[in-house]
Amino acid sequence: MNDADTTLADLKDLVRDFRDRRDWEQFHTPKNLSMSIAIEAAELMEEFQWLTPEESQRLREDEEKLAGLGEELADVLIYALSLANSLDIDIATVVSDKLAKNAEKYKEDEYRGRF
Amino acid sequence: MNDADTTLADLKDLVRDFRDRRDWEQFHTPKNLSMSIAIEAAELMEEFQWLTPEESQRLREDEEKLAGLGEELADVLIYALSLANSLDIDIATVVSDKLAKNAEKYKEDEYRGRF
Amino acid sequence: MNDADTTLADLKDLVRDFRDRRDWEQFHTPKNLSMSIAIEAAELMEEFQWLTPEESQRLREDEEKLAGLGEELADVLIYALSLANSLDIDIATVVSDKLAKNAEKYKEDEYRGRF
Amino acid sequence: MNDADTTLADLKDLVRDFRDRRDWEQFHTPKNLSMSIAIEAAELMEEFQWLTPEESQRLREDEEKLAGLGEELADVLIYALSLANSLDIDIATVVSDKLAKNAEKYKEDEYRGRF
Repeated sequence: MNDADTTLADLKDLVRDFRDRRDWEQFHTPKNLSMSIAIEAAELMEEFQWLTPEESQRLREDEEKLAGLGEELADVLIYALSLANSLDIDIATVVSDKLAKNAEKYKEDEYRGRF
Repeated sequence: MNDADTTLADLKDLVRDFRDRRDWEQFHTPKNLSMSIAIEAAELMEEFQWLTPEESQRLREDEEKLAGLGEELADVLIYALSLANSLDIDIATVVSDKLAKNAEKYKEDEYRGRF
Repeated sequence: MNDADTTLADLKDLVRDFRDRRDWEQFHTPKNLSMSIAIEAAELMEEFQWLTPEESQRLREDEEKLAGLGEELADVLIYALSLANSLDIDIATVVSDKLAKNAEKYKEDEYRGRF
Repeated sequence: MNDADTTLADLKDLVRDFRDRRDWEQFHTPKNLSMSIAIEAAELMEEFQWLTPEESQRLREDEEKLAGLGEELADVLIYALSLANSLDIDIATVVSDKLAKNAEKYKEDEYRGRF
């Protein structure tokens, strides 16, 4: 699998299948999933905790560190995909809608190089 | 756009384009993006804060609430996609790899209905 | 030490002393400390992640679990005290001021048993 | 009130009194309080989100910004005090115990200026 060939629906199906094979939907209330996303986001952030901004840029070249980061990011995304499954949210729709809304708020001319 | 027809790469491109049109890459260090993901995850969680588990299930039927939730989830995902862009992480790969690893750890037979 | 006899200043001094004996102020920028508080808060939350509301109440009687929770709460507080040290914030002042502000916003008569 | 004259017990009493006057204990399960701490921690972190490390240091001199930060830190502490009330945790004990444990782990000689 890779990002060029994988749709959001493919990834949501993978996550749903994992959950259903274990009959875990009963534990995965939307409230609990929102906590899971926040917990995993904090673990991801922990990887950057004591780095300078520059050191955090250079992680791109550190394959071992990058593998760990990829796993933490995956955890965030797995729970986010699961919440989208649970609430029947179409991710492509909400993401593109939010970007359109942000594009109105942060006009290119006004916000170029500043925020 | 919808999840059936949109690839991860499509969505990553949208997010990258938004950033580059504003020349914001300079602010979006991986460290700052990890903070953004955590901040948005907390805002998403705030929507569920005082709900009982049952009330959180019923959000599915509350269209107005659902629209707000969709926006908060979009914010988490936008920053997660941006971090993946920034660190050249292939999302489909890390998510499917992590699910495979979890499937080893949480065998279906052993973990069905429990965790 | 116990809460009846320990002032906020006593606890702030303990935390400052720990940091200074290791010459760690250089790493403990306010920005990094705010990340630490959020990371430790997520670890604390993780202890409650899959509990029902009722199970979370009953933790009070589970001494072993309670010891773990106490440590996680301590981590949150250590970094919060450290941020107060770093920014010269008087905790008793900001907490009592915020409670007074909240008392205006949430009048007792209006908000009794609801929110 | 100020940190030199205020005990942890004084502050815990203030927070408990605020809750009980509104009969809010029913909503403040330990699980919900742990979410509140994490949510407020993220709001505090948001104040530092886009600052360089150096800019975050200089907040000390910006009285207006500092007032906002003080309020956000107060929110974290109010919920942390409330969780301690709810679970009968003695804060001075768990904080001093954790510092003692950390002092064993991070020996002064070994960790001076590094971590």
